[in-house]
Amino acid sequence: MKKIRAAVVGYGNIGRYTLQALEAAPDFEVAGIVRRQGATDCPAELAAYKVVKDITELDQVDVAVLATPTRKVEEYAKQILALGINTVDSFDIHTQIVDLRRSLNAVAKEHGAVSIISAGWDPGSDSVVRTLLQAIAPKGITYTNFGPGMSMGHTVAVKAIEGVKKALSMTIPTGTGIHRRMVYIEIEEGYNFDTVAAAIKADPYFASDETHVNLVPSVDEVIDMGHGVNLTRKGVSGTTQNQLFEFNMRINNPALTGQVLVCVARAAMRQQPGCYTMVEVPVIDLLPGDREENIRHLV
Amino acid sequence: MKKIRAAVVGYGNIGRYTLQALEAAPDFEVAGIVRRQGATDCPAELAAYKVVKDITELDQVDVAVLATPTRKVEEYAKQILALGINTVDSFDIHTQIVDLRRSLNAVAKEHGAVSIISAGWDPGSDSVVRTLLQAIAPKGITYTNFGPGMSMGHTVAVKAIEGVKKALSMTIPTGTGIHRRMVYIEIEEGYNFDTVAAAIKADPYFASDETHVNLVPSVDEVIDMGHGVNLTRKGVSGTTQNQLFEFNMRINNPALTGQVLVCVARAAMRQQPGCYTMVEVPVIDLLPGDREENIRHLV
Repeated sequence: MKKIRAAVVGYGNIGRYTLQALEAAPDFEVAGIVRRQGATDCPAELAAYKVVKDITELDQVDVAVLATPTRKVEEYAKQILALGINTVDSFDIHTQIVDLRRSLNAVAKEHGAVSIISAGWDPGSDSVVRTLLQAIAPKGITYTNFGPGMSMGHTVAVKAIEGVKKALSMTIPTGTGIHRRMVYIEIEEGYNFDTVAAAIKADPYFASDETHVNLVPSVDEVIDMGHGVNLTRKGVSGTTQNQLFEFNMRINNPALTGQVLVCVARAAMRQQPGCYTMVEVPVIDLLPGDREENIRHLV
Repeated sequence: MKKIRAAVVGYGNIGRYTLQALEAAPDFEVAGIVRRQGATDCPAELAAYKVVKDITELDQVDVAVLATPTRKVEEYAKQILALGINTVDSFDIHTQIVDLRRSLNAVAKEHGAVSIISAGWDPGSDSVVRTLLQAIAPKGITYTNFGPGMSMGHTVAVKAIEGVKKALSMTIPTGTGIHRRMVYIEIEEGYNFDTVAAAIKADPYFASDETHVNLVPSVDEVIDMGHGVNLTRKGVSGTTQNQLFEFNMRINNPALTGQVLVCVARAAMRQQPGCYTMVEVPVIDLLPGDREENIRHLV
């Protein structure tokens, strides 16, 4: 059977784990890696692959996995969809997903390509669970509790504060969708800890949450990429109250994101042209192999 | 907006809860109820509805919810699909789902109708979770642990044994997908408990499970329709081991089945002609309301 040829665009944490997931998948081959710096200072594990600055330098790419920063997703996706190549991404700004979907839907349809957006674990696989639970117990409240785990977005926000040398922001769930932020920093010489801590707590990322800032000798020593989710719903099916649901996971964060991206890269090959979120794609399309065999084993 | 006109075919436990879920749904209206005995001995809650012996006596039915015994599903579905009416069911014999799908797919396509099969909670909503977890951690083992709760199938099997007057079979999870069967019976006069208990334990439904049979003064006094699931997966995403997932629910069994049936009745209106299992239907199609609004709130 012909394998799906995938390019990885961007080679940070997510790009690295995406490559591992592509290598582990039975139905993919790696068309190449796209990095700003091309083959310069190339990590050893890329020796076997074509590493380029622009996706047009790669042959016969079926799908591009965008492992770029979230704010770069729209720009890259539009360029690549215009080449008739499918794209997938883990765009994670919840409030902008509908706009991104509209924007990429037009480009994808125009060029006969497919885009699946916001496909990580949240937004992503958690969204599938949330939607399913909303459907089967239509009245009620879902709480998504994150952590304990490192928040990439909050960590970047702390690093941007003047006087911060290195930073880690941990998300600690306190239930009912409320989170505590535990921030660990090293500071630049000549800065006062209390001043820096006050600036962090005043940042919009932290101002509305309970936030504790801690000075540590080495941020690198406390970083762990494990993460977790506890998603609960108590709701009503028909007129029957007190239907209780809970979804838990404890996972390596970028490893799960990379795997989800590979699943949706596969699913993209099976959709009509257009732009989709994960909840719009049948879950069976995420799997390799024969459809009837998958139904036999999983339904 | 035009409402979806649904008929309920069969009016036992599942039919009753399906009707409640239809009444609670904003986008449905009840076209009528189909029962073998028609309007004879009609329960009070059906007074407002047209109750008939044959679905052809109802007007403009968009979708029929088959709340019949599982073994009757294929026969009813074929007849109703042949009228160009969509069908949904909660057919629950796992080993026969692929065959039923093939059989109904042909009839549905021939008559431009849609059938969604095996749509309860297992098979059904659990299948969606199992498939999602298989995709995002492709190597590993999923265990589906049922209970504590009443097993409809096992209870019927006990009732069929000679000398049993009333019965209840409870499923008790002991982990890793292994279950204990706790059976509660009243016996007919003139029968010996030990003989009846031995016959139950020898039945194919029970022969391979740890089974305990208990004589009780009143089976009715111990029946509770609550049920539960604990579904776990420990697996590998890419090359990263020890990704941990868990899905739990504690629910009223027929209420959840009725609600899932109403969700897929809605989704049936949005698929191309053919027969589908729940894992082949995008979860967003299970929801009423505007697609973009649902994405905004749930993704």
